[in-house]
Amino acid sequence: MSQAYCSFNGELITENNQAVDLFVDRGLAYGHGLFETVLLQNTQLPLLERHLLRLNRDAKTLGISIDLSLLDSYLNHFLDHLKSHDLNNGVIKIIVTAGIGGRGYQSPQPIKPSIIFSYSSMPPHMNVNRSNGIATRYCHHRLPNQPALAGIKHLNRLDQVLARQEWDCANYQDGLMFNETNQLIEAISANVFLQNATGDWLTPCLTSAGVSGVMRSLLLEEIFPACQIDIQIRAIEINELIGCQQLFLCNSVRGLMVVSEIYGFQNELLRSLSAEGQTLMLIEKLTEMYPCF
Amino acid sequence: MSQAYCSFNGELITENNQAVDLFVDRGLAYGHGLFETVLLQNTQLPLLERHLLRLNRDAKTLGISIDLSLLDSYLNHFLDHLKSHDLNNGVIKIIVTAGIGGRGYQSPQPIKPSIIFSYSSMPPHMNVNRSNGIATRYCHHRLPNQPALAGIKHLNRLDQVLARQEWDCANYQDGLMFNETNQLIEAISANVFLQNATGDWLTPCLTSAGVSGVMRSLLLEEIFPACQIDIQIRAIEINELIGCQQLFLCNSVRGLMVVSEIYGFQNELLRSLSAEGQTLMLIEKLTEMYPCF
Repeated sequence: MSQAYCSFNGELITENNQAVDLFVDRGLAYGHGLFETVLLQNTQLPLLERHLLRLNRDAKTLGISIDLSLLDSYLNHFLDHLKSHDLNNGVIKIIVTAGIGGRGYQSPQPIKPSIIFSYSSMPPHMNVNRSNGIATRYCHHRLPNQPALAGIKHLNRLDQVLARQEWDCANYQDGLMFNETNQLIEAISANVFLQNATGDWLTPCLTSAGVSGVMRSLLLEEIFPACQIDIQIRAIEINELIGCQQLFLCNSVRGLMVVSEIYGFQNELLRSLSAEGQTLMLIEKLTEMYPCF
Repeated sequence: MSQAYCSFNGELITENNQAVDLFVDRGLAYGHGLFETVLLQNTQLPLLERHLLRLNRDAKTLGISIDLSLLDSYLNHFLDHLKSHDLNNGVIKIIVTAGIGGRGYQSPQPIKPSIIFSYSSMPPHMNVNRSNGIATRYCHHRLPNQPALAGIKHLNRLDQVLARQEWDCANYQDGLMFNETNQLIEAISANVFLQNATGDWLTPCLTSAGVSGVMRSLLLEEIFPACQIDIQIRAIEINELIGCQQLFLCNSVRGLMVVSEIYGFQNELLRSLSAEGQTLMLIEKLTEMYPCF
């Protein structure tokens, strides 16, 4: 940025370094960008290819064209940096934004994306949650119907932030989110799979709301077929959820998390569940094919 | 941030300065924050009080508590800096985010907001648009219904970004945005007022979508009453828009902009209008009470 006049928490920003660009980046200004949270295990990123496929595909919806070989070289440089600090396990967050420029909401021509990586340590209690199951609660905050943005892991995540603000105790490990008409869409930071009362496996259709997760696609495309279990993608009403036999959440960092307790809108315990039958088969197949989970 | 492991466009971020915090700020990560674009004229910010009132009120909805006296001292420091560079006119953007911290979507306790200012020069063609009127077009991209976030000028602005990407010519100065049921909500970067076929003045109700602008509130609370013109806040169907006698857009930087042409979803010219009667009264009263417009 040639002429930067910015202030950050009272400090005038006058330095001539790239970080200054972030103050006028469209990622911060409008959430005009996307992100991936990628598991780093033993210096490896086991699901990286799926993450980059999704990132590249969904970026186009936001008008952003990613140079994947450039991203890859930046990423390798960053991973080397982490390795030299003995950081071999954790989470790599990849953010790609529409960069700087444009006038107001108008996108710059061409868009020159910003590519940002940051490292954080592994989430706490991950292994405990996997073996004990997790408690979830219904969120009051509803996901809006927005087909144009549904499925995309973009940077506009106030719905998740507000839903997560509904509790500050440690009783629940995630929240279940619905749309305005009481259809189950996803958890705050995970996708949802359930086996209904008649034994059918289902996961919500995400054409109007929700994030189409990398672990969700891996389960749909590899794990369910490998277990020869049929899975339907369709709308799920709240009553079908309440009557479920099995329920699990999944994401690409935490893997597959069995839900052992479902709490309702008034924090009342609605269901206690334990993993059995086909859920155990799916977990076994996942860890067999992807030992990192 | 004590241990920063970040990369920005291939550059490892290791410097120990506050700007580095932005890489993990919740404003960038989730759009967890708000912004104001404030007119700077002759070293003054004429509508600052209204901007700060709105910012402070709406921040609470996002769980952010702003220390206004701190913000004020930072702002004065920044304005002195601009003055020393002879930058006396333009736009000051104020961004307040939920700062850094928390685990994933979970907000930190307490939230320590980041306060960011940036300066940009005055938008081009502002005076030409005011005197000639502007051309607008219907946007295909629809605003979702989200009562929990309606009215707030938060950092989740992908709807506006995608709507603005619908054209890249200079034929239109703004776009009109609708919800899924064809009700008029706002323009991409302005609020909307119209006089319908029967002579009533209306502006859309923003309880389900849209940004409740500072200029909109000034018009509703000061200018319409001063002109003794009744104004209704209610849902406006697209047919009522098509039949309007007068239409103008407004925001706190560009003031009141008369719409002279409305183009439809297929870019067909639907209406040509010219400012007359009560529109001229409102403009005159606004510039009398606020000479900056």
